[in-house]
Amino acid sequence: MEKKLKFAVLLSGCGVYDGAEIHESVSVLLAMDKMGVEAVCTAPNTEQHHVINHLTGEEMPEKRNVLIEAARIARGNIVDVAHLNVTELDGLVMPGGFGVAKNFTKWAFEGPAGAILEPIKKVIQDFYKAGKPIGAVCMSPTTVAKALEGIANVQLTVGNTIEKSPYDIRAISEGINQTGSTAVMVSVNEVFVDKANKIVTSPCYMMEASISQIYAGAENTIAKMKELV
Amino acid sequence: MEKKLKFAVLLSGCGVYDGAEIHESVSVLLAMDKMGVEAVCTAPNTEQHHVINHLTGEEMPEKRNVLIEAARIARGNIVDVAHLNVTELDGLVMPGGFGVAKNFTKWAFEGPAGAILEPIKKVIQDFYKAGKPIGAVCMSPTTVAKALEGIANVQLTVGNTIEKSPYDIRAISEGINQTGSTAVMVSVNEVFVDKANKIVTSPCYMMEASISQIYAGAENTIAKMKELV
Repeated sequence: MEKKLKFAVLLSGCGVYDGAEIHESVSVLLAMDKMGVEAVCTAPNTEQHHVINHLTGEEMPEKRNVLIEAARIARGNIVDVAHLNVTELDGLVMPGGFGVAKNFTKWAFEGPAGAILEPIKKVIQDFYKAGKPIGAVCMSPTTVAKALEGIANVQLTVGNTIEKSPYDIRAISEGINQTGSTAVMVSVNEVFVDKANKIVTSPCYMMEASISQIYAGAENTIAKMKELV
Repeated sequence: MEKKLKFAVLLSGCGVYDGAEIHESVSVLLAMDKMGVEAVCTAPNTEQHHVINHLTGEEMPEKRNVLIEAARIARGNIVDVAHLNVTELDGLVMPGGFGVAKNFTKWAFEGPAGAILEPIKKVIQDFYKAGKPIGAVCMSPTTVAKALEGIANVQLTVGNTIEKSPYDIRAISEGINQTGSTAVMVSVNEVFVDKANKIVTSPCYMMEASISQIYAGAENTIAKMKELV
């Protein structure tokens, strides 16, 4: 019997503006289950950069923990990323959301100069060095670029400057290039595969997109990752 | 050109143990988008019953607002249920999660005797009286039963006592019967349609289920609702 593949799903909280984007996270989990890949949800045990009221967009005078909030998406079934056993896993998937650029790195505030959280850097490097595929959608390619700074030049996408986006895709792409990796422009409906480095990226909500397009992006990302295992 | 259908999606927070179940909520939104139904997310502007740490299951010394937390699932695009315009909508969908039995009613603590939040009772009655379909998955049929207490005997399901469930399906079904409605037992892979009352229910996470089964339950629920419009 073929061994069931197992991918870690790295979450940065729970909510697009201060954590993991929920539609992308659930789409990744659903796509994996449909394709017979087991999910091991994981997140860092660290305080969120801040808490955003998702109704008003304003900061709230609260403190929340990334692992505890991410556990909402995982229904309690989640592992501290510092305790993740990479040898037992076949790949790493990173949904997007501002959490990746606020809690994993400080990209949202300082661009590529911002520091990356140590356990996040370590886990991405561990999967990369083990030759296990990494899938990153939406804003999370910036975290992959930052984690591999000085180690590798990988090709990544966060979208394109032709289709509609609520974000400055040009500036983010230039930031990726500054880390020593290479930003590639693709359509919201495409995935980009860096075969040599086993990295799969897709724009998802970096571009204006429907939830069906998000799910398609997640499904295509997981399918390409499976091919790379 | 055919008018695009528009269903309200009534959320009870953000997280299975104190709010809306996230996989079910996103599955409903994804299924609706795939089937060409526009979603209008809505939630009551009220304090959550409590806040549960989803990692440990313990209560946290915090206060959170149902509408503000539900806005995380809705990416900020959400309406206070008290301001919902039922005449502009074609149906009402309710994902599950403990939020429905803690924030909408007090069923989790007091069973069918617990009070129901006024704006929730009103919105369910408004859709029911307008002859517009109501879809309710997981635990949310208990809120429908409570809202229609003394008004109608509707047929609802929260699962069955043969397949595996983490909950006491028999007790919850008996509670539904006590409100004057009728609990029906169906498999996790089925939906139950009360055609006369235009109510569609499906067990989803009331039973042990995979996220793919949750998505299928959501898709079947929306499909049956469309037939009833």
